[in-house]
Parts: sequence; C-alpha cells; structure tokens
Amino acid sequence: MTANRLIYLPLGGAGEVGMNCYVYGYGPEDKERLIVVDLGVTFGDMESAPGVDLVMADITWLADRADRIEAIFITHAHEDHIGALGHLWPRLKKKVYARRFTAAIGRLKFEEAGLPVEEIVVVEPRPATIKAGPFQVQFLPISHSIPECSMLVIDTPAGRVVHSGDFKLDPDPVVGEAWDPSALQAVAAEKPVIALMCDSTNVFSPHPGRSESTLTDPIAQLVAQSRGMVVATTFASNIARLKTLAEAAVKADRSVCLLGRAMRKMMAAAEETGVLQGFPRTVTPEEALEIPRQNLMLIVTGSQGERRAASAALSRGKYLGFEMKEGDLFLFSSRTIPGNERGVLRIVNAFSEMGVDVQDDANGLYHVSGHANRPDLETVHRLLKPGMVIPMHGEHRHLREHSKVAMAAGLPAEIATNGMMIELAPDGPQVAEYIETGRVYLDGSVLIGAMDGVIRDRIRMALNGHIMVTVLLDEADEPLGDAWVEVMGLPAMGRHGQPLADQIEAELNEFLTGAGRKVLADDDKLDEAARRVVRQVAMEEIGKKPEVTVVVSRLMEG
Amino acid sequence: MTANRLIYLPLGGAGEVGMNCYVYGYGPEDKERLIVVDLGVTFGDMESAPGVDLVMADITWLADRADRIEAIFITHAHEDHIGALGHLWPRLKKKVYARRFTAAIGRLKFEEAGLPVEEIVVVEPRPATIKAGPFQVQFLPISHSIPECSMLVIDTPAGRVVHSGDFKLDPDPVVGEAWDPSALQAVAAEKPVIALMCDSTNVFSPHPGRSESTLTDPIAQLVAQSRGMVVATTFASNIARLKTLAEAAVKADRSVCLLGRAMRKMMAAAEETGVLQGFPRTVTPEEALEIPRQNLMLIVTGSQGERRAASAALSRGKYLGFEMKEGDLFLFSSRTIPGNERGVLRIVNAFSEMGVDVQDDANGLYHVSGHANRPDLETVHRLLKPGMVIPMHGEHRHLREHSKVAMAAGLPAEIATNGMMIELAPDGPQVAEYIETGRVYLDGSVLIGAMDGVIRDRIRMALNGHIMVTVLLDEADEPLGDAWVEVMGLPAMGRHGQPLADQIEAELNEFLTGAGRKVLADDDKLDEAARRVVRQVAMEEIGKKPEVTVVVSRLMEG
Repeated sequence: MTANRLIYLPLGGAGEVGMNCYVYGYGPEDKERLIVVDLGVTFGDMESAPGVDLVMADITWLADRADRIEAIFITHAHEDHIGALGHLWPRLKKKVYARRFTAAIGRLKFEEAGLPVEEIVVVEPRPATIKAGPFQVQFLPISHSIPECSMLVIDTPAGRVVHSGDFKLDPDPVVGEAWDPSALQAVAAEKPVIALMCDSTNVFSPHPGRSESTLTDPIAQLVAQSRGMVVATTFASNIARLKTLAEAAVKADRSVCLLGRAMRKMMAAAEETGVLQGFPRTVTPEEALEIPRQNLMLIVTGSQGERRAASAALSRGKYLGFEMKEGDLFLFSSRTIPGNERGVLRIVNAFSEMGVDVQDDANGLYHVSGHANRPDLETVHRLLKPGMVIPMHGEHRHLREHSKVAMAAGLPAEIATNGMMIELAPDGPQVAEYIETGRVYLDGSVLIGAMDGVIRDRIRMALNGHIMVTVLLDEADEPLGDAWVEVMGLPAMGRHGQPLADQIEAELNEFLTGAGRKVLADDDKLDEAARRVVRQVAMEEIGKKPEVTVVVSRLMEG
Repeated sequence: MTANRLIYLPLGGAGEVGMNCYVYGYGPEDKERLIVVDLGVTFGDMESAPGVDLVMADITWLADRADRIEAIFITHAHEDHIGALGHLWPRLKKKVYARRFTAAIGRLKFEEAGLPVEEIVVVEPRPATIKAGPFQVQFLPISHSIPECSMLVIDTPAGRVVHSGDFKLDPDPVVGEAWDPSALQAVAAEKPVIALMCDSTNVFSPHPGRSESTLTDPIAQLVAQSRGMVVATTFASNIARLKTLAEAAVKADRSVCLLGRAMRKMMAAAEETGVLQGFPRTVTPEEALEIPRQNLMLIVTGSQGERRAASAALSRGKYLGFEMKEGDLFLFSSRTIPGNERGVLRIVNAFSEMGVDVQDDANGLYHVSGHANRPDLETVHRLLKPGMVIPMHGEHRHLREHSKVAMAAGLPAEIATNGMMIELAPDGPQVAEYIETGRVYLDGSVLIGAMDGVIRDRIRMALNGHIMVTVLLDEADEPLGDAWVEVMGLPAMGRHGQPLADQIEAELNEFLTGAGRKVLADDDKLDEAARRVVRQVAMEEIGKKPEVTVVVSRLMEG
C-alpha cells in the first residue's frame, strides 16, 4: 500500500510576476488527483520574445495527466491569472470554477476561442464549497484591485491549505468586499492551516498598504483644479479606480466617457454581474465630442504605454475625434510595471510637446497597489498561523525575501520555483520532484515552445540581419549562372563604397568557379562553404556576421 | 551689410538624455563661425535599434559647414558627451579642446579609430581661455560624477553665454573640485550672462542634491557588516565612488580588486592625469583569487545590467575564477537608468537564486546622483542671473519643467529641441530656423542612418519572421521545377499539422502552374503575386503575415 501525499506544484508565477499556474495534488505518488489554480499569461517583449502575442506556462505535464485533473479554479479575472484560459483549456477540458465577475470574463475568452461556456461554473463565496475529488474548495472574498478576488481555502484529507491568490488588506476598497480579519481568523479556527501559498509581489514595500479610498480626495482635488480636458488612465479591470475617477469628475461638473476596448469589456462584465453599483452615468464618445473640454473627463486604456491603446493613440494625435491640447491634464492613476518605462515615457514626452500637463504617481497620491505589503503579509501569517509558508507570485528575489519574512516569524518556509513539486508533509515542506517546465508563446494563431528555436532565429535576424544566397547547379553539379544574393536588414553599402550584395556575389562566384566537385555535389558542404564566404565578406565590409540562408537548386533532367 | 547674430543649435541631447551635441555660432546669417560642444552617444535597445552598437546625432548639417567650424569642446568624459568623438571627428577635423582627464579618454578613442591624437588639446581651467574665431571659451570646473567636469563660459561679441554641461552642487565631492558658488558669482560679475544653456536631468527631483561624501559612512558600515565576499558595481567613470568603495573595503580589512575593461581604462586615465590621489592599493584578479572571500571586495562593471559586463557574468556563474556564494553581498552603488530595469532585475534574481544578498539603492544610502536637482538649478539661475535660460540635457518633459522653473523665477526661457536653431537675441530667444536632424547608428563598422530602412527591416523580421521563395524560370518563362521555400523565425508547423514550408510550396506551385505569361515574364508582377500567395497561406496556417523575399532566377541560354 502506498501512502497518500499532498503536493503543490507551481508551473508558472513562481519566479516571475505573471502567467500564474499552480497545481495541487492528493493521493498515492504519481496517482495524485489534481486541481489547477489559475491559467494566466504574461506579455512578451522585443528583447526576449519579439512578435509574440502572449506568453503562458508550458502545461505539458498537466496535459499528460489530464485524466487525473478534477477541476480548474480561477481566483480572479486579471490576465496573469485567467488570460491563458481560452488557449490552454482545450488541453485540459475540465470544469472551471470562478466567482461571478471572473466567470463573466472567462466566458468572453471561451466565446472568442469557440469553447463551451457551460464548462465555466459560477461559484458563491465561502461557506459554499466545491467538491473536486479529494479536494473541497471554498472561495474566500479578499480585497485586491479587481472585483471579487478570492483566496482559496482548500481542504484535503491531509489538512487545510490556503492559496492566497492576489490580495491586499483594504478595509474600504470602494468597490467590493472589504478586508475582514475575522474571516481569516475563522478559517484558521475551523481547522489548522497546514500550508499557506502566498502572494509575494510587494514584500519589499516596508509600510502597510494604503486603502483604495485614500485616493478619493486627492483625485477629486486634482480634477477640480484642472481647467482643460482631463484624461485619466488606469487598468480597465480596476473597477473601484474607475469609480473613484468618475466620481471625481462628477463632483467637478464633468461628464465621464470611457475609451478603449478593455474599458468597455470590463464595464460590461461589471454591470452584468452586479458589481457596478452606484457608478456615475457615462456618455458615449459621440456625446462626449459635443461637450466643452472643461466639462469632460475621459478614462482611457493604456496605462502601461501599450502602443495600440487609447493613451498612446492620444499621444500621437487625434483619436476617435479627441485631441489633447495645451492646458489639458493627463493623469496616470497607475504604476509603471518594470520594463514598460520606455513606452510610458514616450507618451509623457509626446504630451509634454503638446503642452499637456502630465501627472504621474511620483508622490503616491493618485495610485495605490493591489498587493499586500510586508506588514500586511505578516498580518496574514499571524491570522492564519500556517504550518508552513510557500511564497508565490513573485520573482525569485520576492520569494526569497518573503521566505525570510516568514522565517523571522518562526514559520517554516520553502522557496518553490516553477517546476519544483513540493510535498506538504506534516514535518515541513520537502522537494518531491523537479518537473520540466517552461514557456509557451502564442504567436499569431499558433502556440510555440520558447525553446523551439523560432524566437532565437528572430532575435538573431534582428541583431545580425539576414543574407540569402541562391546557387543554381546543373546535373553535372556545375554552377548555372552566377550566385544570387539578397540582403535584408543590413546596410546596402560596404565600407569600400560598393553594394554589399555585389561584393558578396563576386566572392561567391569566385569561390564557385574554384570549388571542386566534392563540394559542389554535396549540399551540406556547399551550404557551409557559401555561408563562410558570405560571413567573411560581410565581416570585412560591414563588421558584422549576418544570419545566412543558402538555397541550392539543382536542375535535374526533366 | 548683414547684422551679426549669435545662435544656439542642439543637434543631440535636447529631447533625450544622451548623445549630446550642441552648436554655437556667431556672424552674419548663414555665415556664422561655429563651435561644437560635445560629441556624445547613446545606446540602442532591442525595441528601437536591434543589433546597433551605438547611436549618435546626425551631424550632416555640421559636416556640410565644416569650413565654418572653429573648434570642438568636450565638457567631460562621459560617453553621452564624448562617445562619438572617434566616429564623427573625421567628418569635422577640427581641434578638440578638453581638460586633462577628458583629453586622456578622448585620446584612447582617437587611438582606437586611428586618428591623430595631437588634434586633442589639453586645456587648463578658467581663467585660461581658448580663442576660437569670434568665441573665447573658458572651462569652469564644476562637480559631477566624473573628474574634471566643466561648465563652459563662452564669450562672444554679442555677450557671454554659459553652457552648463552636466553638473551638481557638491561641496565635498571626494574626488576633484568642490562646488564653489563664488566662482559662478564671479562669472556673472565680470560680464552679464545673456544666456544659460542648462542641464535638466534632475529637474523633477524636489530636494537639494546630496554630496558624494554622504555615502562614505553608509557604505563603510554596509561593508563592515558583511561576512562573505563583497562585490560592488558603479559606473567606472565615477572615480570618487570607486574611492569611497575602496576605502570602505580597506577599513573593513578587505583587499580591493577592480574587474572589467572600463574599470581598468578609467583607473589608468585617472592615474595618468593625476586625479587619482590617495586611492587605496588594489590587487590583481590573480592575487585576489588567493585572498579569503571575507577579506575581499571586488568593484566591477555592469551596474546597468549590460550582458557582457562583469556583474552579469558573475550572475551567470564563474567569471575570471570568481564565483558568488550564499552569504556574499552584491551592492548596486548606482541607479538603474529607465529602460535598463529588465537587465538589472535579471542579475538580481540570478543572485537571489545563489543566496547572495543584493543591496540596491532603494533607500538612497548607497548612491547619489551626479546631476543638479530642482533647488540646485534654482541656485545656479540665481547666481548667474542669465538673461534667458535654455534647458538642455533632458527629454522633452525635463526641458518643459525646467523652463517652468526658470520662468517662475522671472527668467525668460525657451524649449529648444534637437534641430531648433535659436537666435540668442538681446530681446529674448527666438527660433531662427528648423534644421533637419536625426540619429546615426554605428552598426558593426558602418554608420547607417536611422531612417535608411535597415533597422525597420530588422524589426519587421523580428516581429513577423522571414520567408524566402526561390522561383526558377526557363527562357520561355516557364517554371523550371518547383518553387522553393525557406522559413526563418516562424513555426515549422501550421495549424493543419503540415510543415508550413511544404504548404506554401504547394500553393506556390499551383499558382505558378496557373499563372499566365504576362505574370511569369514580369519580375515585379511575379514577385508581388508570389508574395501574396505566401502571406495568404501563412495567415491561414499560423495567423501571421511574414516578411517575404522572392528570388526569381531566369535561366538564359548560355
């Protein structure tokens, strides 16, 4: 008889902020029944994944064990938790459980992907309980920067585990459920919490987090002082922030207009699911165009500088008939995520050229984070009294710092990064196995592996340029005419003032003339030799070694 | 008779932080005699200029008027002020004036480029004066984060102008000349300053700047508390910081070893020019390897996360025999320049995985900026009492804010971005002309224009992949064999599970079979049609429209 065990396996999100995907399992070794928590994405950038639309965890390990999966749980509707649902679900095909608002966003993704929306099940908050094999799961409402975020209280035969999801401790979150310490106390009082998997995003922030409601007055004041049009940007999913901004506008006698696809989608989902109570009336873009600019506030997408979003579009000129002018105010009610600085500053400088005043969050008045700071994490540790803490949702530096915080409070902690299967044993966390993990890219309509070489080739072409050589040979392996060279992404002229392509062609032809039959008859040898000639000439003429593709066409008797 | 005028023309640095290049002119319109101040570079990134080694101002306007240039002045030896000297000087060929340390760095660049080093002339500080046509130029020592930085006091028949260069107001800069308000007062007392061109980098920092010397105790304390090896990184040119770090090491009974090419180069120049007084003895890397790690401090290059520098190399594993271990300390005595966050965090997380404690400048204890903050700018405005302020050395948002600061103090100000020629007229600054400017890239060994299309093609290949098609036709314009397709940077398989190249070839062959002579006989038509076929198939199979190169080979009777 094999002993049952309880395992935890992060496939994404433990070692990065983004593409969250966690697995819990219970049962005999290699026969554990599994549940999946979150299927998120992250975004590629030009440096690491040019041309890639979305990045998600490689769930091959899960897909290979799909028959052992009981269910999928989504903690909240942020893209880094739900964004991969439409792309990865077809490999798992298990019921998806989420609260109302999250489920609404999930259904949109299912509809886009042509998947059966009835597979998404709406869950009521704790004490409602979903039974999934050996697991019993409750959604415990917790404040964050999106409606209906939840911690998961997961009961197993081995004991109770809490999966924190993303959270902050906000006693007055403007929209949605307030932070309630007694709810956490009750969780721990009912049954001891043997392990807490916990959000680490803000572990380096030393002060207690601030409430969403602290923004109401500063934002209202800022808007009241403005004379021209006011445009504000924040994450579209931050319904509370949208409300704070909209209410500030109304107080200042301004009409509110929402711009951007994500803004409309989120508002529709909020309305449909009843989380949008008391939101000021908004006007359509067409109506807004008729309103004097001093009586108007636009709330727009693109707080991270995304090129296609409304903020960037406005910074380039007219957008849907709207145009920023000297004396207008643009408010970033947001924090720039590390890596997005260039895109955001591009917008700021473009507005500066227009004479628009830009207010960012430099002084902390117009934005608060949705994540728990270090003292807040300590509070949650204290309330839940977990047998161990396993930090998640963070880069390695966050996980390491969070584990130090836990250990300083006398709690055992384990740094578990993507692929580390941890057995949540009674005597403490133990690494059970290392699972091969990685990233998968959505590129156009196709999922490709991060290690497939596709992206490597793109990066090489971007760094080194690309030269294509065509060589034509007859049946006797004799060159038919001259070699043909095409150059892409390289200077047309070499340092001797001659076209680079001509110089390479000349060298190639000389080489072909002198090459023996042994080389000419062998595709691989010919390819390698031609490649060497190209690189030598390029190095001499332009100081670079380009990527080279050699096409050898052999003309055969018809 | 044409009236003489005094003009100012930024070609780089006014609208960005980097690639500084400013021009002053005096004389009749279009016949002004010119001087050049600084020839700097900036660095390309994967997003805007993949594969590019250096970015510099397009000096075509200057080169076309080389006969009117009197001299080139370099304010200090930071790369954004001197980095283009070896690359652009051959187009100007005029004497270069700089102080001793700056000239030493300039000579290294000349030697690398095979240029005549005697064209670089060492200048003593004010009151020493260089006569350059109608200009008389003095180097006024000012504190910054590199030795021997200078403001330029430029006398012209139209009056005195001050070009601030980069500066901070540091009464105790550890190395080099201390901030001396009376020196500035004297400049204004001698002759009224009609215009101040002024560093804007830190205009958004509301508090007075801190002295380099405030770091001595915190750094010494941090090093003294460390048990393992200590590794610190900062800009190699910040000789004062190197000294502070080295002295902290010595106090803690540690030997100091400098690692990285830039570190050695800067220290050699500092030694040669006598600015390196009282620097602790250093050990070679070979000697350092014999020293117990708790008695060692490495000072290394790569504070901005540069992949090839020592910091990044250490974060990847062994470097020159050194290897970081649990319990070691890595200190970023530096600020991360916006845009470099990802590279720096990559290093931080890699060290975190090794168990190395990373100390960054989050709390402001281990780094101070080399630029004047807003109150310091106000001090300089007050001391020099300029007739007008023209902000430089900043993005547009910095220039705009700086001009607001000046105007708040009652000083006329003008935002002049790259290419705006400003006449410094007695009744205030006036835009005289807009000059076409831009960027030039050093790519391998060749200078290419930013708008030449080379970089555009690289970016497109990186985003979209590249497909090459070879079509062979006989003398009668009939296809000879099948079309040949090579795919680079795209998924090998389409969504129908067939190789993408095969599917495109099949479609191309079908197209070629059906194509009329009118298309087959016309290279352009054939190219366009083949391109369309490729993109259609790719769009259907992988959801992307790749870059396409079509090679049409026509076999002619020999």
